[in-house]
Amino acid sequence: MPQTPTIHPAKTVEGHVIGIDIGGTNLRLALANAHGDILYHWSATVADYRAPRAMVKLIRTGVEDLLHQAALPWTSLKAIAAGAPGITNVDTGVVIVTSYLLGWRDVPLRDLLQTSLGVPTAIDNDVNLAALGESRMGAGQEATDLVFLAIGTGLGAGIIVDGKLLRGSRWSAGEIGYMLVPGAPDQPVERGDPGALERMIGGEGIREQWQRRWNPNHTALSQDATATQIFEAASNTDPLAQSILEQTARLLGHTICNLYLVLNCPLFVLGGGVGMHSALIEETERHLKPWSPRIPVQLKRSELGSEAQIVGAICLALGCQL
Amino acid sequence: MPQTPTIHPAKTVEGHVIGIDIGGTNLRLALANAHGDILYHWSATVADYRAPRAMVKLIRTGVEDLLHQAALPWTSLKAIAAGAPGITNVDTGVVIVTSYLLGWRDVPLRDLLQTSLGVPTAIDNDVNLAALGESRMGAGQEATDLVFLAIGTGLGAGIIVDGKLLRGSRWSAGEIGYMLVPGAPDQPVERGDPGALERMIGGEGIREQWQRRWNPNHTALSQDATATQIFEAASNTDPLAQSILEQTARLLGHTICNLYLVLNCPLFVLGGGVGMHSALIEETERHLKPWSPRIPVQLKRSELGSEAQIVGAICLALGCQL
Repeated sequence: MPQTPTIHPAKTVEGHVIGIDIGGTNLRLALANAHGDILYHWSATVADYRAPRAMVKLIRTGVEDLLHQAALPWTSLKAIAAGAPGITNVDTGVVIVTSYLLGWRDVPLRDLLQTSLGVPTAIDNDVNLAALGESRMGAGQEATDLVFLAIGTGLGAGIIVDGKLLRGSRWSAGEIGYMLVPGAPDQPVERGDPGALERMIGGEGIREQWQRRWNPNHTALSQDATATQIFEAASNTDPLAQSILEQTARLLGHTICNLYLVLNCPLFVLGGGVGMHSALIEETERHLKPWSPRIPVQLKRSELGSEAQIVGAICLALGCQL
Repeated sequence: MPQTPTIHPAKTVEGHVIGIDIGGTNLRLALANAHGDILYHWSATVADYRAPRAMVKLIRTGVEDLLHQAALPWTSLKAIAAGAPGITNVDTGVVIVTSYLLGWRDVPLRDLLQTSLGVPTAIDNDVNLAALGESRMGAGQEATDLVFLAIGTGLGAGIIVDGKLLRGSRWSAGEIGYMLVPGAPDQPVERGDPGALERMIGGEGIREQWQRRWNPNHTALSQDATATQIFEAASNTDPLAQSILEQTARLLGHTICNLYLVLNCPLFVLGGGVGMHSALIEETERHLKPWSPRIPVQLKRSELGSEAQIVGAICLALGCQL
């Protein structure tokens, strides 16, 4: 039973939720009302808190801080949801595996959070949550189907079909960093290594491509440029940067074609620091144009940007994952 | 109300359904009881009946013949379902487009059949129905997710996720004949033309590859061999046939990898006259082996064979499409 509100009657009657985005570098929380409006943000670096129990403790601190900030009682908190950067069993609430930065294996995250916080808790993969966020409150609100392409350091996809997340029977649908497309290597990679496609068009992969092909005669940019710097330079007609942008867009275009052919999903939302760059989106649209009679896709820039995961977590906590 | 049975009481009390497989060459019908057991088959060539209304008339003849054969009254027929070789809007019951052989455009097939036969009617794409058939009564009965790969003259996929067909927002999920994989051309094709991948590993595509590379010094097989003859010869160590089999299996392996990465579906059922060939399945398994830590898929030969579509139509008519 909800306790009688003490400070903000309108809000506490409806209740609040907290969305949580667990990253390898930062932990971010946001408190939202029952409409999904974010009221307060909270974040911390996770350098000393990467072990699951330490992370849960840090999350509890964040939750307490947010409720305090909003002058809300604990009883006002109705649910939380957390996104983790790894393969997540949504039914059992276990994070099966994350990347090396957190290094989690079979962590019962939902139970740990529920025990610590005493509120209903849901967990999911972070890219899935970003797709959910864009679908409910971002670039995909008009669509029943969308693919969210997360291009940051790496590359991944969150898939919404008929308004629901397609998670896969082993919780790892959308692992497109390993997709085999013309122009990327087609050799199997060692377990734990990033996929060949990710090594071409993920943010870190673009840097690697750049470093390998860097030649001061063909560019004014330094050898340690980032993907977004390379795309900026391409917009300013730097020839080597243009060639890297063109390669990235071609491979991304191929990836989008293949996703469309399998899913028949017409809307692609591009997110992540690299994926949101307008030069990349425009060049990819140019590459897709000759395919458009057969593959009529629409590319949209993420509307939620770096908030996509946390908004998705709020949606999940609010139960708006239909 | 079901009419009082006259001849087969147990059957007519439960009612019967008819599954229909519309092809560019043959029309096939099967009458089944309420458990999905096929009691009688009926088929005809469609050469003079390709126009939609003529086809519906031919279907009516088949339905009458089947009921007569089974000595069942019309009232015993509770529902029918038909699979068409094209893009099919399941909600409106309209076949949007088929291949050139039928040449249909926007045919309201469900309404035409319902008007002609007076029983509840459902329609779907034929490869989707084959996937449904294998999922309910064939090689995928244990699985909630599967991909049915139809490799006959052409190449297509039917996708089952969480026990349901994934049809796509424009009814053309699984159009994998256009998938872009390393080793197949990555140029856009003209509207209406088969995809580059289909032209490499569809039955007709394999024949084309064979004819192009045929050289009597490297094979004992004739230049007009079919895909299955080529696979037979490969099993008997014919060098050119082996090279074609190896290429087909490599590209099919790549296709399966990409489908797995998007859908995270571990079971692939291979159907169609070419897809069911054991030499192709074994060679594809061999190609997938190095990927198996990352892409742990299981290949199964279709259990229903050429009956897959019609069994799927029976399932659809019985309402067992959950």
